[in-house]
Amino acid sequence: MDAIEIIQTKRDGGVLTGEQINWFIKNFSEGGYIPDEQAAALAMAIFFNGMEPEELTNWTRAMVDSGTTLDLSNVGKKTVDKHSTGGVGDKVSLILVPLIASCGLAVPQLSGRGLGHGGGTLDKMEAIPGWTASLGEEEMLTQLREIGGIIAAANENINPADRRLYALRDVTHTVDSIPLIASSIMSKKIAEGTEALVLDVKTGSGAFMVSFEQARLLAETMVELGENSGMRTVALITSMETVLGNSAGNALEVSESIEVLEGGGPEDIIEVTLALAQEMLELCQVDLDPREILASGKPREVFEKMVSAQGGDLSKGLPVAKYKKTVDALDTGYLSKLDCRSVGFAAWRLGAGRAKKEDPVSPTAGVVCMHKPGDYVTKGEPILELHGDKEDCFDSAIDALEGAIEISDSPPDELSLIIDKISI
Amino acid sequence: MDAIEIIQTKRDGGVLTGEQINWFIKNFSEGGYIPDEQAAALAMAIFFNGMEPEELTNWTRAMVDSGTTLDLSNVGKKTVDKHSTGGVGDKVSLILVPLIASCGLAVPQLSGRGLGHGGGTLDKMEAIPGWTASLGEEEMLTQLREIGGIIAAANENINPADRRLYALRDVTHTVDSIPLIASSIMSKKIAEGTEALVLDVKTGSGAFMVSFEQARLLAETMVELGENSGMRTVALITSMETVLGNSAGNALEVSESIEVLEGGGPEDIIEVTLALAQEMLELCQVDLDPREILASGKPREVFEKMVSAQGGDLSKGLPVAKYKKTVDALDTGYLSKLDCRSVGFAAWRLGAGRAKKEDPVSPTAGVVCMHKPGDYVTKGEPILELHGDKEDCFDSAIDALEGAIEISDSPPDELSLIIDKISI
Repeated sequence: MDAIEIIQTKRDGGVLTGEQINWFIKNFSEGGYIPDEQAAALAMAIFFNGMEPEELTNWTRAMVDSGTTLDLSNVGKKTVDKHSTGGVGDKVSLILVPLIASCGLAVPQLSGRGLGHGGGTLDKMEAIPGWTASLGEEEMLTQLREIGGIIAAANENINPADRRLYALRDVTHTVDSIPLIASSIMSKKIAEGTEALVLDVKTGSGAFMVSFEQARLLAETMVELGENSGMRTVALITSMETVLGNSAGNALEVSESIEVLEGGGPEDIIEVTLALAQEMLELCQVDLDPREILASGKPREVFEKMVSAQGGDLSKGLPVAKYKKTVDALDTGYLSKLDCRSVGFAAWRLGAGRAKKEDPVSPTAGVVCMHKPGDYVTKGEPILELHGDKEDCFDSAIDALEGAIEISDSPPDELSLIIDKISI
Repeated sequence: MDAIEIIQTKRDGGVLTGEQINWFIKNFSEGGYIPDEQAAALAMAIFFNGMEPEELTNWTRAMVDSGTTLDLSNVGKKTVDKHSTGGVGDKVSLILVPLIASCGLAVPQLSGRGLGHGGGTLDKMEAIPGWTASLGEEEMLTQLREIGGIIAAANENINPADRRLYALRDVTHTVDSIPLIASSIMSKKIAEGTEALVLDVKTGSGAFMVSFEQARLLAETMVELGENSGMRTVALITSMETVLGNSAGNALEVSESIEVLEGGGPEDIIEVTLALAQEMLELCQVDLDPREILASGKPREVFEKMVSAQGGDLSKGLPVAKYKKTVDALDTGYLSKLDCRSVGFAAWRLGAGRAKKEDPVSPTAGVVCMHKPGDYVTKGEPILELHGDKEDCFDSAIDALEGAIEISDSPPDELSLIIDKISI
């Protein structure tokens, strides 16, 4: 085996064999033998020439095999998970995991740390006083058996190849390659041991995949890859043209999630959550109506148990930002645009997200949408409420909102939230 | 400036600015600031997306500026050089440099060490007892002024960016990118300070660019790049379907070159040498007939002076291999094929070339062609004579010749040696 020959094969449009892939990933992830410059050249060649389905399945399997995997066979329940490609205000997991657990299934949601405008699911949960993302393997299995849901950090022994490759892709501008994204996401979910997976692939201004075509291609690639890897997989393509729900920010989103679990909350977040829940239940052949389950209040209890089991105490209340500032309507009329990416950037500049893996995030910072597109607003009325602990962040957050808000004489077209479903 | 943004621009088909290029090459060649993985990703993106003429000129200039350059303005003669992309038996420089020096011009031929099947020009000259490739800058200028020609090693301060980038391209399979080849070659020639340059771009089985189309594209790219960089440049595309001249090997080629300088030698090597000489003289507007100059015997004297000035002593004779073995005709008829690449590999396996930069080469090893394509040969008659100092190399050299020799009832078509000329 020879790294140069492997790079050559891919660069010249060929298909890598399973043996070549295993050798490359093994020697790259263990460090030292295959240097970063060779992996960077291969990643760039993959960006240009892609991977065939079988090749991608082998690549993904090799990533899984670079580390340990979770064995969920003794949990005594069917297992199913959800993965979202991420969006502004996407707090779906906080509602969905206890909802699905309430249906008798087990949801082993392991996450990494979010990069970019919003915090990840772990950052949101960490806004809850005392809550810890770290669970040992035995604790995870017990919690899945007894409560049915975990939201926890993937441990360092899972998929080291992905961690090393992701860091490299980040500095070599090879992040946005469909096969590399798909294998990164799916290898983590396969290693987690779930039998079935529902993907929420976001499209629109606030999504990683802005264009619908790219989102669909990613969804199709991941669904095929999941099925080829023996994990039942479907994907929904959902809209990320504006903030999901009314808030973007860690504690703010926990609070909104609890509202939904208690029967309230914004309609859009409920719609997306129920659509994903429906797919998860169908994949596991469970004939329950997720709307009824949500209304029963049981998911709220399960959420409480999940939080307590990981040391969290909701009775202590959630942290609140020191400073608030509103962004007001400059006109009277219909709110026709509230740009998702800009609101995400504003939240990020207020401290809700991180730029580097090591950065801390603020639990309190974020943006609350007082209005959503379609609302009739009056000049001077607050549209957004910015939250932050550092007074000097507000100016740059407001700069990020330049051009993000538009008010028109007629209401905007209503956009579908659930755009497409991809399954095999 | 940001390396990731530069990679992104090139990856997505954009054109790098002069400022971006200067920053990248400077920070890469000085080491440390831009790591190899980022340069590897950029090289692969350049492989796929190429470079625009102005971009390539800037890239090449930045490589030149990474090191020192030779100032030939005080040599008192017009300066002109020749560069060949390399082929089996290509000893043209040994004849051409003294020939052009005999015409009153100065030829500052600086070279690196050859990789691959044959030794480079320096390796050939080093077969001469006592000859050294290392010359200080002052010695170079004096020799150009007084004798008119140097063949010497480029010093370490010239073009460090190219050295570092070449090593990286070698391990990331990005060597065969036309703009990267062109800038590597041309930046070294520009740094050498020559006013004019004739390129000998080889095509055929024994050439780096096997296909004519690729050779022409490389030639066009280099001619345009040279002219854009203020160095008058023309290229000849010449055939490398069979060995040039009758020998491939270091001392063997010195000996053949001296034969030519003394009025003998094979017709093909004379034809290519005179064609290149003609172009060099035209670029410098010197109205002399190179064939007459060669016949005058003056180039032989200049060669003697060049050798002596660098410590060489031809009166001591050239080293001779310990072992010889012939490869004989298996049939009677016309020699219709004597494959260039295979003969090159055989010479390499006998010790004439190196696999790694640090490897020594054998001065004596090589292959002598007793016949060339078109000759009528009799079964059992020697076609090739293999020379080597290690008896155990012969078997693998003979293996390399499997299928390389064909004998037919009719003579092969005569091929043109000079296939095309590229100039602006």
